[in-house]
Amino acid sequence: MNGGRRLSLEEARALVCQIMAGQGLTDSVGASLANALIAAESEGQPGHGLSRIPAYLGQLKVGKVNPEAKPTVRQPMPAAQFIDADGGFAFPALDLAFESGSELARKTGIAAISVHHSHHCGSLGYQVERFASRGLLAIMVANAPKAMAPWGGKQPIFGTNPIAFATPVEGRSPIVIDLSLSRVARGKVMLAAREGREIPDNWALDVDGNPTTDPQAALAGTMAPIGDAKGTALAMMVEVLAAALTGSTLSCKSSSFFDDKGPRPHVGQFLIVIDPRSGADSFAVSVRELAETILTEPGVRLPGMRRHLAILDAEKNGINVSEKLLEELMQYPGASE
Amino acid sequence: MNGGRRLSLEEARALVCQIMAGQGLTDSVGASLANALIAAESEGQPGHGLSRIPAYLGQLKVGKVNPEAKPTVRQPMPAAQFIDADGGFAFPALDLAFESGSELARKTGIAAISVHHSHHCGSLGYQVERFASRGLLAIMVANAPKAMAPWGGKQPIFGTNPIAFATPVEGRSPIVIDLSLSRVARGKVMLAAREGREIPDNWALDVDGNPTTDPQAALAGTMAPIGDAKGTALAMMVEVLAAALTGSTLSCKSSSFFDDKGPRPHVGQFLIVIDPRSGADSFAVSVRELAETILTEPGVRLPGMRRHLAILDAEKNGINVSEKLLEELMQYPGASE
Repeated sequence: MNGGRRLSLEEARALVCQIMAGQGLTDSVGASLANALIAAESEGQPGHGLSRIPAYLGQLKVGKVNPEAKPTVRQPMPAAQFIDADGGFAFPALDLAFESGSELARKTGIAAISVHHSHHCGSLGYQVERFASRGLLAIMVANAPKAMAPWGGKQPIFGTNPIAFATPVEGRSPIVIDLSLSRVARGKVMLAAREGREIPDNWALDVDGNPTTDPQAALAGTMAPIGDAKGTALAMMVEVLAAALTGSTLSCKSSSFFDDKGPRPHVGQFLIVIDPRSGADSFAVSVRELAETILTEPGVRLPGMRRHLAILDAEKNGINVSEKLLEELMQYPGASE
Repeated sequence: MNGGRRLSLEEARALVCQIMAGQGLTDSVGASLANALIAAESEGQPGHGLSRIPAYLGQLKVGKVNPEAKPTVRQPMPAAQFIDADGGFAFPALDLAFESGSELARKTGIAAISVHHSHHCGSLGYQVERFASRGLLAIMVANAPKAMAPWGGKQPIFGTNPIAFATPVEGRSPIVIDLSLSRVARGKVMLAAREGREIPDNWALDVDGNPTTDPQAALAGTMAPIGDAKGTALAMMVEVLAAALTGSTLSCKSSSFFDDKGPRPHVGQFLIVIDPRSGADSFAVSVRELAETILTEPGVRLPGMRRHLAILDAEKNGINVSEKLLEELMQYPGASE
């Protein structure tokens, strides 16, 4: 347990709802945050889970997150929706994107959903998987505060700009992909910095654009992209879709998700939702054949399998929360065991 | 000139049209092939250019490419089109995708275009850029004969499964991204094998899944993905969209584009076309700001700039064709200087 406490998913969800109610947020917003944060914990991404709450509430307090946000949806073109997160948390806006985007894609075959005036969107895997659980394919991209330079550059321009994808697989859990375009998450460098450890020389670049093993130099510099110029090219694609097309703040100008300084981040998320009936009748058979062919080789997994096993484990055994974090959370008004 | 001959784009185009007419193909199919092959030459990708003609015609002769193909389009759902390339060359089907997909996206905001019963699609940059030249965004993915293993595996399952993207940029040429998910193109390994050179140890894996510097061992094995497991996860996304959704042959079963053996490859291409009016009014301003911010740093380029300069150079100075290839091409009925 690493000195932590194990909470069942119900206990953890109740705790988040209590804390959010204590901040004056509606039950619906509280439930939305609880679902997203607990989903991240369950799938093994605690960095997008309960540990975010103190930063979230600090931002709520100073108005960097709008406590009164009411996400709205409009449909500028027949297969496109535009969701205004209204400066609030991303999750209620993404819940709206899920409901209205699923419905639209079932009518049109493909739907583009732009989310703007948004905030940290946590686990993208959680967001795309629920479309797949309804029999739809989903692609999601998001921009984020600057962390990566264009290839050959030293100045951070792009966030780690994640790409996620999910598809239903007949008779199995969905295939889920959720990856950032940096080699490793920035959180790993932050952890090494806190612990005074060196980092491998291919994780990050210093302010002069040279590889570094010093985590402090890395945090002052930029994260290394996957595939060199290919990774930064993909980050450009994500930036155009998630920031420019959605009318959001570019990553290079967006404020931090971690502190209560500066204006609202106003980042964006962009989703493409596809009804497989828009494609071939053989779709389901073909995806299953692909999955089964891959699994014939011993030791090879499908993307999302480890994540799926972690979720099953969390449903059965709950999640582990450090004593330190739990103590901090219990200080908020309304939090009770 | 490296012992080659320089042809103007008009001369090169006329030559391809003559050769295709000599094979009994219609003027329209000949022009489609000429445009795509010359575009690849112009942008500096001769591996997708005139050098493909002998293999193409060999496949045409034995029916591995259907000489009578008539691409057709149907619209299973309001924002989705399904194009049957009819076992012919990919290019006439992709021309149809361009015309009908542009029109549809302008109505619906986003359009999904599946192309199946298709063949080698050459430069994806050429395909997506023309949408951007019309003010639209385009994403394109394609599957291809097997070359990459899932992460942790030794058996090739995925093609090098490219992803391309283009967006208009106000006052500039479009940003164009076109990348395969392998670290390097398989053609580089083939060239090293022909020349008896070793390859860097991070390009490919042997049949046992170990890094190799021997190009022959690499060709018998698999190409290394960008970003390790992240690259193969993206290859899975491409496979699901370009092969399964389009109703095409999976990469692991598809026949070679290079010889006249086996059944038709019947690979697929999948395009997503987006009208920026589906997004924010600030789109054009935001993309321009992003481009200009990136270009403030000396020595940093936008994706597609080198490609664009190569095209401008080819328009002015023509392309270089090796004497050997030119001799081979001049043997075909109808080819004349």
